[in-house]
Amino acid sequence: MATDPAAAAAAALTLPSPTAAFLAPYLPAAAAAAARKDRPFVTLTYAASLDSHLSVAAGTQTALSGGGSKALTHYLRAQHAAILVGASTAAADDPGLNSRLDGADAGSQPRPIILDPRFRWRFSRDARVLRAARARLGKAPWIFVARGCLEDRADERVRWVEEAGGRVVPLDDCDGWWSWTYLLSAMRSLGVESVMIEGGATVINDLLRLENRALLDSVVVTVAPVYLGSGGVNVSPQHEQGREGEAVVRFKDVQWQVLGRDVVMAARPETCE
Amino acid sequence: MATDPAAAAAAALTLPSPTAAFLAPYLPAAAAAAARKDRPFVTLTYAASLDSHLSVAAGTQTALSGGGSKALTHYLRAQHAAILVGASTAAADDPGLNSRLDGADAGSQPRPIILDPRFRWRFSRDARVLRAARARLGKAPWIFVARGCLEDRADERVRWVEEAGGRVVPLDDCDGWWSWTYLLSAMRSLGVESVMIEGGATVINDLLRLENRALLDSVVVTVAPVYLGSGGVNVSPQHEQGREGEAVVRFKDVQWQVLGRDVVMAARPETCE
Repeated sequence: MATDPAAAAAAALTLPSPTAAFLAPYLPAAAAAAARKDRPFVTLTYAASLDSHLSVAAGTQTALSGGGSKALTHYLRAQHAAILVGASTAAADDPGLNSRLDGADAGSQPRPIILDPRFRWRFSRDARVLRAARARLGKAPWIFVARGCLEDRADERVRWVEEAGGRVVPLDDCDGWWSWTYLLSAMRSLGVESVMIEGGATVINDLLRLENRALLDSVVVTVAPVYLGSGGVNVSPQHEQGREGEAVVRFKDVQWQVLGRDVVMAARPETCE
Repeated sequence: MATDPAAAAAAALTLPSPTAAFLAPYLPAAAAAAARKDRPFVTLTYAASLDSHLSVAAGTQTALSGGGSKALTHYLRAQHAAILVGASTAAADDPGLNSRLDGADAGSQPRPIILDPRFRWRFSRDARVLRAARARLGKAPWIFVARGCLEDRADERVRWVEEAGGRVVPLDDCDGWWSWTYLLSAMRSLGVESVMIEGGATVINDLLRLENRALLDSVVVTVAPVYLGSGGVNVSPQHEQGREGEAVVRFKDVQWQVLGRDVVMAARPETCE
């Protein structure tokens, strides 16, 4: 993966038009998203192996999917107002969190949002997301931090984020984890009308739980033809207590599309019990 | 699922011809399979959820895939000389282990092989595989048992199997588990030129390990659009010691096909390191 913003911009991606048509029904429609005031339109998306692993070990990034799937990710990023990842993913991948889709201009870049309740991501001024923002290849990030964990506003990380045009956003302290209802409501009150949630596994598994899946408008999963093997970073949501004998999430409006060596599912969660 | 053989025969299945064409390159070719004397042609096949689970809990069967995928299983069964499952799968599913494909005649029925080293499957004379054999809707099963665990040849289970035309086959005792090289060699010496291995998870995960994957000629995996959730029966092979940072199995000749709400991958394992 290119680490220099100029090189990254040069490596622009294009999505085949049948794939764009395949995705269209699952994307946020601007008017409908703007009209909803309680939360943004939410798309959950990730790429996994046949055995539903994101990577072979925590804290590492495993090259999984092919160029077509990468173009799909960057296409989806350009279709959302914001993209969200957890702090572990930011720390493991040092992601640019911009869209390198061919033709993606400043206006179509998503706002990177990093969930970091304890402000533990020890990035430098050289983090890709900051370099991309300074080079105007992406928007500057918002980092969501629990108020109680943001004692030092002179922290150089706050300065680097603000210098790039971003914000460290203090949110209410909650016991251990914010609820998704709270988080999505906070995003909407900041003007975010659609968000693509990319990972990592903790975020994905939490969103796929029974109590959260009604918050998901679309789910786009890429499956790569490989077994990463047990012990890796696994997507498989927890059952609610007392419902261990049932599937956790079923889908409606299921469509698949082959993309190079990978396959992509687009669907909406069933929410009626 | 129909439990009466006559009803089962009535519920005959058909596979769409594009799916048959899609599978053709991955099926055993009679001449090539006959020429190989060390082992049969081996196809590994199963259906799993997006999170790579076969069922929500050990010992239970979870309805996962749609009618198209069921037709695919029965089509594949008719294309192999034998089908193999572990004893836990036999006990959990009470499978017929025949092909209910429309037009499957006695000659195209596969030989059911059940791996039961300790002869622990407590079936009755009414087991579906025995009823199917007596009704000439399938071949009679061979049950592979470790010699040392087959002390009582007057065991009524032996009698029921033999009465249906099958055999309880004593194999050499091995510490805890037979190697797949030994098992496949034993099958070939019994005249089996191709085998479709259907499960369960212990069998599948063992075959996908580094040391065994060169024994797999084809892998056919159906993915159903559902999350069964953590704690279920999971397909994800173990890493060899010292190779935890690498994918366990990669594939070549990868093809996908959409089949109703499901998607099917056909591929061959990469075996060069």
